[in-house]
Amino acid sequence: MSEIDQADHATLALQLQAHILEHIPLARAMELRVARYEGTELELTAPLAPNINDKGCAFGGSMASLMTLTGWGLVELALRARGIECDIYVGDSSLRYREPLFGELRASARFVAGDALVIFLKTLVARGKARIQVHCAIAGEQQDAATLEAAFVAKMR
Amino acid sequence: MSEIDQADHATLALQLQAHILEHIPLARAMELRVARYEGTELELTAPLAPNINDKGCAFGGSMASLMTLTGWGLVELALRARGIECDIYVGDSSLRYREPLFGELRASARFVAGDALVIFLKTLVARGKARIQVHCAIAGEQQDAATLEAAFVAKMR
Repeated sequence: MSEIDQADHATLALQLQAHILEHIPLARAMELRVARYEGTELELTAPLAPNINDKGCAFGGSMASLMTLTGWGLVELALRARGIECDIYVGDSSLRYREPLFGELRASARFVAGDALVIFLKTLVARGKARIQVHCAIAGEQQDAATLEAAFVAKMR
Repeated sequence: MSEIDQADHATLALQLQAHILEHIPLARAMELRVARYEGTELELTAPLAPNINDKGCAFGGSMASLMTLTGWGLVELALRARGIECDIYVGDSSLRYREPLFGELRASARFVAGDALVIFLKTLVARGKARIQVHCAIAGEQQDAATLEAAFVAKMR
């Protein structure tokens, strides 16, 4: 496993955005963008207008979708950065909606445990399949507007 | 609380579909339809094409969005049928993704407990606010492709 520098991170983030927008029509409809990637944290954004609900705030489904994609993207990028080709699926997820959001949706994802990525990569190489736990949140005014705890499963191609 | 007959159910279902498609752009992008409403159960559908992912199966965010809207719609319709005007918000949710889905998304929602609706309506009238637990599932080939357990909170306008 080699160290990945910041320039590679930016390139990987742009490639991920292109991949998502090409292959996931709902992400296009949400006008999703990759805002920031730093190896252990990924941030995706989407404007309110295409993600609004009948009460004028962010639609719960858009928040769930954005956080799911942010968590999935974090795992996808960690593997792409190391040249590991996998299919990654979202597993069991817990969502909390804490306050209504009346502006841009900004979701960040990080691995729950500090050593989770190392164990995940070792297991994946050894068994061809591994699971990792990701925490995602959408920023709100007073607190997180919503949070997601989700497992992602990677399977070697 | 009066009894609601089947013709009213069909009218309410059409009104709900129009309301969702008018006010929630992501539901339009998903090509959501109200398929069936029977008072204690609501079924919404969406075709695969606008809800596909990069692996050729249903996008997890689309499944989460469809189930959230189905649960929300079930609560919304129960209140509309009784002429009660509320804002309804999705609360804490648990999602399970059980198998990939390579066809139409078909989500059904029902109240978790048999007497849940009666208690919910009584509390709502007494306190102006109440919470109800809903179970949703998307049909798969061998089993449910995905399930959602979610709380919905209604607040009198």
